[in-house]
Amino acid sequence: MSHQIKLTRYISNFVDQLYRSGVRNVVISPGSRSTPLALTFAEYKKFDLWVDIDERSASYFALGMAKKQKEAVVLVCTSGSAAANYFPAVIEAYYSRIPLIVLTADRPHELRDVGAPQAIDQIKLYGDYVKWFHEMAVPSDIPKMLTYVRNQADRAVRTAIMPNSGVVHLNFPIQEPLLPDFSISGLWGHNSPRIVPQMNYQLDETTLTEILTLITDKKRGLLVCGPDNTEGITEAVNHLAENWNLPILADPLSPLRNGSHSKTHIIECYDAILKMPEVRKQVKIDFIIRVGAMPISKAYLQLLQENTDMEHFVIEAVEGHREPVGLKTHFIYGDPVKILAQLANVSLYYDPSYLKAWQNWNDETKQILSEINQEELTEGHTVLGIQSVIPKDQIFFVGNSMPIRDVDSFWFCHERAIEVFANRGTNGIDGIVSTAVGMSATGKHTTLLIGDISFLHSMNGLLLARNYNLSLTIVLVNNDGGGIFSFLPQAKQQSPYYELLFGTSQSMDMEKLAKAFDINYHCPKNWQDYLDSLAQSYEEGGLSIIEVQTDRNENVLWHQTKWNKVGQKLLGLMQKNENVL
Amino acid sequence: MSHQIKLTRYISNFVDQLYRSGVRNVVISPGSRSTPLALTFAEYKKFDLWVDIDERSASYFALGMAKKQKEAVVLVCTSGSAAANYFPAVIEAYYSRIPLIVLTADRPHELRDVGAPQAIDQIKLYGDYVKWFHEMAVPSDIPKMLTYVRNQADRAVRTAIMPNSGVVHLNFPIQEPLLPDFSISGLWGHNSPRIVPQMNYQLDETTLTEILTLITDKKRGLLVCGPDNTEGITEAVNHLAENWNLPILADPLSPLRNGSHSKTHIIECYDAILKMPEVRKQVKIDFIIRVGAMPISKAYLQLLQENTDMEHFVIEAVEGHREPVGLKTHFIYGDPVKILAQLANVSLYYDPSYLKAWQNWNDETKQILSEINQEELTEGHTVLGIQSVIPKDQIFFVGNSMPIRDVDSFWFCHERAIEVFANRGTNGIDGIVSTAVGMSATGKHTTLLIGDISFLHSMNGLLLARNYNLSLTIVLVNNDGGGIFSFLPQAKQQSPYYELLFGTSQSMDMEKLAKAFDINYHCPKNWQDYLDSLAQSYEEGGLSIIEVQTDRNENVLWHQTKWNKVGQKLLGLMQKNENVL
Repeated sequence: MSHQIKLTRYISNFVDQLYRSGVRNVVISPGSRSTPLALTFAEYKKFDLWVDIDERSASYFALGMAKKQKEAVVLVCTSGSAAANYFPAVIEAYYSRIPLIVLTADRPHELRDVGAPQAIDQIKLYGDYVKWFHEMAVPSDIPKMLTYVRNQADRAVRTAIMPNSGVVHLNFPIQEPLLPDFSISGLWGHNSPRIVPQMNYQLDETTLTEILTLITDKKRGLLVCGPDNTEGITEAVNHLAENWNLPILADPLSPLRNGSHSKTHIIECYDAILKMPEVRKQVKIDFIIRVGAMPISKAYLQLLQENTDMEHFVIEAVEGHREPVGLKTHFIYGDPVKILAQLANVSLYYDPSYLKAWQNWNDETKQILSEINQEELTEGHTVLGIQSVIPKDQIFFVGNSMPIRDVDSFWFCHERAIEVFANRGTNGIDGIVSTAVGMSATGKHTTLLIGDISFLHSMNGLLLARNYNLSLTIVLVNNDGGGIFSFLPQAKQQSPYYELLFGTSQSMDMEKLAKAFDINYHCPKNWQDYLDSLAQSYEEGGLSIIEVQTDRNENVLWHQTKWNKVGQKLLGLMQKNENVL
Repeated sequence: MSHQIKLTRYISNFVDQLYRSGVRNVVISPGSRSTPLALTFAEYKKFDLWVDIDERSASYFALGMAKKQKEAVVLVCTSGSAAANYFPAVIEAYYSRIPLIVLTADRPHELRDVGAPQAIDQIKLYGDYVKWFHEMAVPSDIPKMLTYVRNQADRAVRTAIMPNSGVVHLNFPIQEPLLPDFSISGLWGHNSPRIVPQMNYQLDETTLTEILTLITDKKRGLLVCGPDNTEGITEAVNHLAENWNLPILADPLSPLRNGSHSKTHIIECYDAILKMPEVRKQVKIDFIIRVGAMPISKAYLQLLQENTDMEHFVIEAVEGHREPVGLKTHFIYGDPVKILAQLANVSLYYDPSYLKAWQNWNDETKQILSEINQEELTEGHTVLGIQSVIPKDQIFFVGNSMPIRDVDSFWFCHERAIEVFANRGTNGIDGIVSTAVGMSATGKHTTLLIGDISFLHSMNGLLLARNYNLSLTIVLVNNDGGGIFSFLPQAKQQSPYYELLFGTSQSMDMEKLAKAFDINYHCPKNWQDYLDSLAQSYEEGGLSIIEVQTDRNENVLWHQTKWNKVGQKLLGLMQKNENVL
């Protein structure tokens, strides 16, 4: 059966090469057309296989895994609308630079665009959101084509991983019959290793001099580390800050807030510090050097909008223009760790009074934000609770909308090496549960902080967590609706349609839902209860939901009270050290 | 505040024109950037507004509504990944020719591609799957631009509806502040009505003569009506069949099997009749005239593959090539109802013995398929149960994979005017619950027949059903996994990976899940129980799940036994009337 031999050899060489080029995790959704791919991945035996029925959920799961592991994860689905369900995660991967390899099975060319069942036009399905699309040749086992299929597999992995990492989409036209024959001998072949050069982008001397010329005579400089998890970034940023006496504004999705390294220069409360316009007016900046994406903080964005005449440097690995304020910006392209090291080698020593002022504000702010009322359980302090109980070396995944903002405010510098992640490519509330489940699938217990709307949106992720007995603590902040809108003018206008269009209360009984998925459920009513529930979930492991019921209006008020208290305190302090500002 | 006036007038004129051009239903997902659109649709007060938190679910819901109502339904979402969640439903709408108007809010141009939060490249987001994409101008209230925005609204509706119906995508760049001011006077304007011509595609005399020349001397002709719900198609097909003495093979998604019209010429059991290869060998065809998409039946497709020398006519409204067999086909473009009427006007009278043979086979087959064992409750007979209990004038929505195939076999001709629908553009198992919920939102009680994997995939649709107190009976056939794969070679090969990759058992307790969504739950164990559960759900209205627990292997065996019995019976009959074949 010549077709079967061709098909088997072609797909086997492809799958074998994926493994040799470094792929370890494969996420498969069931389907018929994808049978040769799915069966070959299984028959190869060396991959970790994950099977999920919902492709949207599967793709966010793969994204979570790839983000944590910093390696390309493969997705496999059948022909038709299945592949379209990957689209939201593909876009998130594009913007957050996560390596994914999407393999879609397709009808052969003669069955396309003729009304054949489950056949859609899959050519360039994801538009510009992939780094590389390739329509694979039809299966063949002549030596040249087996080299071709290996080359494509290797190129897919390299392309997905190479900075900026992203998505590769290969579309496989597959004719029937679909069953491979694994009794064929010499199936996996022998492939000599390929050279994989390390990238080494550094600054040339001219550029370095140009940068230094612009900042040497300045007084008030900031190092900013946005969301970024480049290996070694913590040490590099710290080293430069310490050499030059600069404050570091560290986003919660940078690794700087967590671990045993020195944190003397880290200002983690900058969002709270900069919230009040009157405070921002007092804060002068001469230059900013940023690595990583734009920080989450809106107050930081406003600070930039109000300081358009400073020198603004953004270091991007190879390409990218992540600067939404529209400042005149110097984009410096290269390995951020290497560039920071080059800068740190230059002898520069800024007057420490500017740093000291920031340190002082940070200490005072942190104290106000940490004040706990034992009797209440607020959205902001769900974060403090997690930080005080979470065991070291675990993962903390943060939902979008309110949770990530609360983490920005309340996740302080601490000693335990917790890895903090969120989906900040598109900032969607979709796919959050599934992404967190993907993170937990890498073997580390994961804590997810999420709001009720986002939780319900991505509920299907629970199927995966349940099927694979994964270890996940879900802190579900339930204010019965879209809490973030309560902070926006939409709420203040008191439109009669506010609740319908923005509040969107779902009134789901989360305990019953947890039971339906066999998930442990807790509903703490005060601070100590909450800490106990967390501790219990970490002790027991497995899957649990800790529901924190809050009120949307009270939540707005609580936050505003905190921000006002911080602002008043800082205005007072600033009057005393006006000279450094 | 000039910006606010511009924004308000621009969006109001747009929304007003959508209404004047015929839009009545708007499905909104919450978000901030889309505030002006959402609030204006609400303030206009004349639309039926539907709000859903999951854009994937919302878009299938809109699709269901549009499919039932045959009118364009509007979708509104915010910027970012939200819009990407519409993609599967957009593709389904493209292939099943359903009018949708997707309105996506976007960041203004200066905030695109610069790392601004929740901003993705939304230009041509859905690729070739929309009939028309337009990047809207930024809001303006000069008269020329208000005419422009009205023209775009009208064009969107016309384009979406005009055959082949499909999807229109308009992308709105919106600057802050986002709140409209509805106190502005004369907001909705006065617009003189626009002429909307009726299409009138008929055959010219030459083409008509060419067709007749090819079939006048033939003996064995078939009329085939695939999935289609063109107004008047039932009468047109029936009229031609009766005038010319032709059998009609009527797909379950054509309206022909349901209602009080004559059904003497309708052969609804053709799938069962044609299943056995030995039977197909006996069935000769000289010509086929088909309206509608390709029928669901695989046996019919095989019949075509084995009769490549007949004359094959496919009538398509304006464009399309839905003919996956690759026959030499005459594509006849025009209004199918008018073309069938033109043909029926021609005096042709085929020998009725061919028709009579088909009628005889149909009667015998139906008798075998209808034999019920009171003690068992099989997947196939879930369909018979629905048909025997469902009240007239209701909607029956059928899931893909096994349910639609069982409906093809077991949904016989009957007197009640039930409308039967399914998503057969891409045949996906995704979005099924949400589409059915969208159908029920048109005000008619809807019965959904669905498998467990598909049900779980689209679980979020239940939020909508629950929030709007919709009236839906879900017959959930639970064989704990992907039952259809048990019919494929994948199952017979007995791969050790079969259950992992294809079976995909989820082992969910459906009763608990029903309870979590406050849905009435029944789990009948035999035929009479099942009928009683159905009757109760129709009597009570509202939302209910009737879980029918089956076994995948028993199900394969049960079906094969039926098909063999039918085949043997027909082979015996055919020996007796060999002369007409």
